[in-house]
Amino acid sequence: MSTPNKKMRMNWEVPASRMSHQTFNPIRNIVDTMQLTPNPDKEMIALSIGDPTVFNNLPIPEHINNCIIDKIQGQKHNGYNPSIGYEESREAVAKYSTIPDRQLTAKDVILTGGCSMALDLCICVLANPGQNIIVPQPGFSIYKTLAESHGINVKHYNLLPEKNWEVDLDHLESLIDDKTATIVINNPSNPCGSVFSRNHLLSILDLAKKHKVPIIADEIYEHFVFSGNQYHSLGSLSDDVPILSCSGLTKRFLVPGWRLGWIVIHDRHDAFKDVRPGLVRLTQRLLGPNSIVQAALPEILTGTPQHFFEDTLKYVEENARNFYNRISKIPGLKPVEPQGAMYMMIGIDTEHFPGIKDDVDFTEKLVKEQSVFCLPAKCFQFPDFFRIVLTIPKSKVSMACDRIEEFCRDHYSQKKVQGKTVTNGTACN
Amino acid sequence: MSTPNKKMRMNWEVPASRMSHQTFNPIRNIVDTMQLTPNPDKEMIALSIGDPTVFNNLPIPEHINNCIIDKIQGQKHNGYNPSIGYEESREAVAKYSTIPDRQLTAKDVILTGGCSMALDLCICVLANPGQNIIVPQPGFSIYKTLAESHGINVKHYNLLPEKNWEVDLDHLESLIDDKTATIVINNPSNPCGSVFSRNHLLSILDLAKKHKVPIIADEIYEHFVFSGNQYHSLGSLSDDVPILSCSGLTKRFLVPGWRLGWIVIHDRHDAFKDVRPGLVRLTQRLLGPNSIVQAALPEILTGTPQHFFEDTLKYVEENARNFYNRISKIPGLKPVEPQGAMYMMIGIDTEHFPGIKDDVDFTEKLVKEQSVFCLPAKCFQFPDFFRIVLTIPKSKVSMACDRIEEFCRDHYSQKKVQGKTVTNGTACN
Repeated sequence: MSTPNKKMRMNWEVPASRMSHQTFNPIRNIVDTMQLTPNPDKEMIALSIGDPTVFNNLPIPEHINNCIIDKIQGQKHNGYNPSIGYEESREAVAKYSTIPDRQLTAKDVILTGGCSMALDLCICVLANPGQNIIVPQPGFSIYKTLAESHGINVKHYNLLPEKNWEVDLDHLESLIDDKTATIVINNPSNPCGSVFSRNHLLSILDLAKKHKVPIIADEIYEHFVFSGNQYHSLGSLSDDVPILSCSGLTKRFLVPGWRLGWIVIHDRHDAFKDVRPGLVRLTQRLLGPNSIVQAALPEILTGTPQHFFEDTLKYVEENARNFYNRISKIPGLKPVEPQGAMYMMIGIDTEHFPGIKDDVDFTEKLVKEQSVFCLPAKCFQFPDFFRIVLTIPKSKVSMACDRIEEFCRDHYSQKKVQGKTVTNGTACN
Repeated sequence: MSTPNKKMRMNWEVPASRMSHQTFNPIRNIVDTMQLTPNPDKEMIALSIGDPTVFNNLPIPEHINNCIIDKIQGQKHNGYNPSIGYEESREAVAKYSTIPDRQLTAKDVILTGGCSMALDLCICVLANPGQNIIVPQPGFSIYKTLAESHGINVKHYNLLPEKNWEVDLDHLESLIDDKTATIVINNPSNPCGSVFSRNHLLSILDLAKKHKVPIIADEIYEHFVFSGNQYHSLGSLSDDVPILSCSGLTKRFLVPGWRLGWIVIHDRHDAFKDVRPGLVRLTQRLLGPNSIVQAALPEILTGTPQHFFEDTLKYVEENARNFYNRISKIPGLKPVEPQGAMYMMIGIDTEHFPGIKDDVDFTEKLVKEQSVFCLPAKCFQFPDFFRIVLTIPKSKVSMACDRIEEFCRDHYSQKKVQGKTVTNGTACN
């Protein structure tokens, strides 16, 4: 065998790629380095996990399970499917996502392996390395993780807790530059639990129109809104702004592990004529989601009884109200009343907690003393807040509130701490 | 609202990203531009689709379906799972993939959304844009699609039809340079249906060791070998070469649509100490495969009756033998006898077919005249061959052979065509 005249490696050093080093999950990174030793005398209450299935208190209806079992027994859906998904399943999503005056069809829908993959495809098709995307702060970390893994830059626009987490439009506009590929709007919001009004959404769309920037709408919590609020999909509100909307079965149908998401393409002005085939090409890399769930999708979307959605919402809304009522009375804490989704954000008056440094310190000590685990909002790029999950069993809500109350009583001081840097409500980077 | 002092876009032009333009599926590209109008008097026989479920002639055992139904009814596996997969499921793959003298454990396994995602993660973790990976020719196009979408270059090493598709080791070695991140070895092979001997695999490993290049082993057809042949996993044969082996339920368990694949990490010399956490980080982008299939995996791997595998293999092997015996007698065609997997490659003596230009022309005319559709091996970067799929119903094999025979008889000429460029067996780029 000939030895080629090229530099040979002399030892087994196999460096991991730049992409793998650029891939970074801030939640993992923060949580994994936290000191989380619960009080041995108190059973742990986890208010940290954004998985509505984890306590088994929100069962899914028989109908959904039966749809899957039918397809399994039918043995007709074990094979490969088109990389964008079965046509009937895409048609079903088009009907499910219908908006007035603009008929959606199967060709406007791409099925994906969960909403994460939907977001990944949207970011990948719109942005090149070196360009930027603008994402909410506080916001779910996946946008940043996905973009940065591809060398795409991320800018953060502020959400305003004092205005029910509406977008700071001036701030958002100040971030748009000629390298901005897309703006991500997450409504209803994780971690805020906010639901934007029609008017606010129109203002966001005006801004996008003015600067001709397409939008990625993360609408995985669509329809998940509490009484008195109304959900509007961004795609239903604009004749001008091209929008890629991401959603899936994950949250509303309470099956995050099934990994069935989708993209709905709301094209306007034929702006997406290059993006549509681009999305199709990108799906050919990994193919679509599980074929059985895909095949069951039409019946799941049309046949799931309405009372399941209503019951789930009622459950979560009651938890939200109970949490809010209790926590808003605790000196030193400032909850922002949630309007939907599954979360509430709570501000910490750190000036009144002399022994506590920040949200990470607060949540660590809350575990150590009271065995209650909440995510520090540093995970969402928003220090001095923490997030609680509203899907926990009702029976645990009041115990969790008691413990948080006791914890704050133990640490609260009427007197403000002198010279303490307050970052509350100020976005971090 | 302030207008920032930045270049504003004046119209709605939303170009799709470079990545989406670099993502390219050659099979789709060739097949979609082929003239495929079948003979209206003859029912179509598709020998083109590498999906063993498509004819419903190879049912999966009740046991596999029951594993899924159990987990659906149990309602314990609808939630998120670790991005690398459930520990018990990874442990089950570790046991299933066991190799002598080196115990694999859950930490050596990563579950993925199909084997495509396994390959994508492996390519992404090992190679940077501008580096190269070396892949087989003929070979399955996914390696090229995945790598080029990330700006990673692809070089092709020749497989030798006259040596049962063994690797041309001199050619492979000549391609290795200081930018080579990995070599992809596909055994058993799609499209070749070849199974490498132990000695040949050892020679490949020697080469990798000499140049200190890690290997991605695409072993999705593991154990799928015909009588007289033996399957050796690459990982079982080397104490020196670090290997990432990709496989899944797809082929052996006949459920490609379920999208359950895995990576088995065969580290040597601790060469993958940076690669292991890199793989874990990369899984956090999209999370793992469907939770129900994951949860059912241990029971599927351990409880699926052995006779199912034997029956499937027997069926495919009998088809292989029948196809080979018939086609090897057809003047103008040179089949290479398959040793495993689900495919056979057949060479075309284009010199003896004056009216036929190449493999694409051959397969187009075969559809037009005989309604038999085979994939031109141009799809696998290997012109003047075509690939047939061996999983079709037995009843169709002899009819397919009759028609191919008739077609060749109609076009064959004893006299060689003068001046015709023969690319047979010569790799194209």
